[in-house]
Amino acid sequence: MATYTDIARRVYNHTWKLDPIVRSLLDTDFYKLLMLQMIWGLYPKVNATFSLINRTKSVRLADEIDIEELRAQLDHARTLRFTKKEMIWLAGNSFYGSKQIFEPDFLKWLEDFRLPEYRLEKQDGQFVLEFPGLWLETTMWEIPALAIINELRSRAAMKHYGPFALDVLYARAKARMWEKVERLQKLPDLRISDFGTRRRHSFLWQRWCVEALKEGIGEAFTGTSNVKLAMDNDLEALGTNAHELPMVLAALAKTDEALLAAPYQVLTDWESYYGGNLKIVLPDAFGTDSFLRNAPDWVADWTGFRPDSAPAIEGGERIIAWWKERGRDPREKLLIFSDGLDVDMIEEAYLHFDGKVRMAFGWGTNLTNDFEGCAPDGPNPRLDPISIVAKVSEADGHPAVKLSDNPAKATGTKEEIARYIRIFGDAGRVEHPVKV
Amino acid sequence: MATYTDIARRVYNHTWKLDPIVRSLLDTDFYKLLMLQMIWGLYPKVNATFSLINRTKSVRLADEIDIEELRAQLDHARTLRFTKKEMIWLAGNSFYGSKQIFEPDFLKWLEDFRLPEYRLEKQDGQFVLEFPGLWLETTMWEIPALAIINELRSRAAMKHYGPFALDVLYARAKARMWEKVERLQKLPDLRISDFGTRRRHSFLWQRWCVEALKEGIGEAFTGTSNVKLAMDNDLEALGTNAHELPMVLAALAKTDEALLAAPYQVLTDWESYYGGNLKIVLPDAFGTDSFLRNAPDWVADWTGFRPDSAPAIEGGERIIAWWKERGRDPREKLLIFSDGLDVDMIEEAYLHFDGKVRMAFGWGTNLTNDFEGCAPDGPNPRLDPISIVAKVSEADGHPAVKLSDNPAKATGTKEEIARYIRIFGDAGRVEHPVKV
Repeated sequence: MATYTDIARRVYNHTWKLDPIVRSLLDTDFYKLLMLQMIWGLYPKVNATFSLINRTKSVRLADEIDIEELRAQLDHARTLRFTKKEMIWLAGNSFYGSKQIFEPDFLKWLEDFRLPEYRLEKQDGQFVLEFPGLWLETTMWEIPALAIINELRSRAAMKHYGPFALDVLYARAKARMWEKVERLQKLPDLRISDFGTRRRHSFLWQRWCVEALKEGIGEAFTGTSNVKLAMDNDLEALGTNAHELPMVLAALAKTDEALLAAPYQVLTDWESYYGGNLKIVLPDAFGTDSFLRNAPDWVADWTGFRPDSAPAIEGGERIIAWWKERGRDPREKLLIFSDGLDVDMIEEAYLHFDGKVRMAFGWGTNLTNDFEGCAPDGPNPRLDPISIVAKVSEADGHPAVKLSDNPAKATGTKEEIARYIRIFGDAGRVEHPVKV
Repeated sequence: MATYTDIARRVYNHTWKLDPIVRSLLDTDFYKLLMLQMIWGLYPKVNATFSLINRTKSVRLADEIDIEELRAQLDHARTLRFTKKEMIWLAGNSFYGSKQIFEPDFLKWLEDFRLPEYRLEKQDGQFVLEFPGLWLETTMWEIPALAIINELRSRAAMKHYGPFALDVLYARAKARMWEKVERLQKLPDLRISDFGTRRRHSFLWQRWCVEALKEGIGEAFTGTSNVKLAMDNDLEALGTNAHELPMVLAALAKTDEALLAAPYQVLTDWESYYGGNLKIVLPDAFGTDSFLRNAPDWVADWTGFRPDSAPAIEGGERIIAWWKERGRDPREKLLIFSDGLDVDMIEEAYLHFDGKVRMAFGWGTNLTNDFEGCAPDGPNPRLDPISIVAKVSEADGHPAVKLSDNPAKATGTKEEIARYIRIFGDAGRVEHPVKV
């Protein structure tokens, strides 16, 4: 194992100088770099504010986490630059089978990149954490900000444990994780990757989980969204694009027609940069039904879809039906499932779709932050993951909106949500509980 | 934790110079030192040969373990002396509430102690391993010889594992062990100690288990039979006496009367050295029924019994009935259970005897060598413990015999076993399968 670490001991010895939560600008999701290059190329002047949203209101984050520790970790992240080794790797490595996916000019610009300033205060037991500024800077805060908050929360939850209790905690978590590995080993054609950076229990734990999958399921483990872990472990860096693209383009739209066209403008922009397996549609920003109904026919030529806010089987079947309607063969298409997956759901979707469509799984929170039943002195709810996101809240002064297929995952002001629903419609949007 | 060690990593890095199996002459059971002082005082000229007996015939030890590695470990143990620190601790520490349990002259003699020579060869896939010589030297081989063979066997069983597989193996074993701790936490007046040195998976693993019990059940964990672990972890060193005492005295007996009296002679010898909670009768060497029937009345004044070869409840009830018969109140007496215990049996005996008698548990193989279901790539039977002992086979040229309450645990030549049965009788001896 390249990076053998005794997690329990490191956790007990935590000083953040040894283990800062974010230790590299590559400790982020790969799609951020893909999107960043596109934003840098096409929208370099656009302002976009990212804001933290804690959907698990019952958890009073600002009571659990010390604001000064949060500030220290955020400030530390701002000191980071891409290192020489990292820049060489980004330039020299193949991604999705292509060499030089990043333009030399973009990489040159990236060399000087640093995370921009932030605004942080407490309000009613929650943090108000905002990242205002140029989109091509603020976008890079999403993952480190979430990782920092999640790990500070788990560190706080474990503060009272002695080294022995920590040893048992991690022993149980490893045993639990390995049970999952053994279940996944039984799915012969599985393709699954780690999407768990943002909600991870900790960096060291994510690394362990990634190494467990690498050793445990071999070829079925297709890679990780975490660029640093991909580099360090010689894995594929994976990921495509996120809701922020349609959200910003929609917020910038000057007319209702432009708003309705925004989701497809994203795809046009995207394919000016990326091809092949990177041409994955994320259809649910303003409701999948509306997206599919209004989609130009060429959208059906894209490689695949990532339905991200409906139950996997229901969401997948809807896309398959649409492909058929448009005369495409789903068996040549790819579905990527990534919404709140656990092993039950992976098995179920795998068995359901086997032979009907190519599929891949992006496994997030339940991979990198599942400590249920692991605490040595009885349940510790502060180790349970929460549903926390960092979303674009406005772009060039216009409020940004996400409708989602699940109204529980909608973001934006009431007025703007109402306007978007008027334009995109509300068909097919169904409330589901959001765990993580 | 005083001695924090990453077991998986250490196991992967095993070189026996870093982790010899026996790293101190104190890495033995406390009762060996108690018996040694008595042998030194009363039987300094007696010769006694100890022999290895592998009752699990299906396991071909000499095929699993390299004889040269075995030789190297045995030879390493022969290089050990009690260190200055260890001698100071033996002299200065209290044992069973008494200061200076060891005489200065005995300690002086102990300073120069080293393990005597051994004979080792292979025969039909098994090792013939014998320790001939003076009883006061050979007796000290029992525990290190067994610990060496058991750990060499588990090291061999794990040789093909990579560091990650080992990490998972130990994570599971820790999780499994902690489940047991949590079950024991529910028995409010439990008194349990570690008796697992001889059959341990490894030294480092025994240490982890001992530390787990110390942290997990607190006061209910009364100590360990392992003298080194007791010293290192500030625990009580526990243990009383073993079958070798009646076995040697019986072998030395010149007449049938002397043979019949040997088990009680042991007690007379013992109480010339030790009192209080060290006055524990081990009744089963030649059958408990015979022992109880022929016992002088003063035996019933001893503090307690350790029934060691019958099921706990049956064995305990027999002693309780005898105490009552002899007019003693069992609630003032102590029963120590130590035969093949697992958590089920501990719970069962605890609930059965609660309020009827004082009791304590000496937990052995199932504590320190339970890796069932822990191997990361499916069952590995070579990690299952085996029933292996080192017993006195002869004393001053006479074959030694143990009848036990369980004929499956009897040792000795056929002819001598028959003679002992003729003299002690066969009543109450019932065959039970011997797992460990």
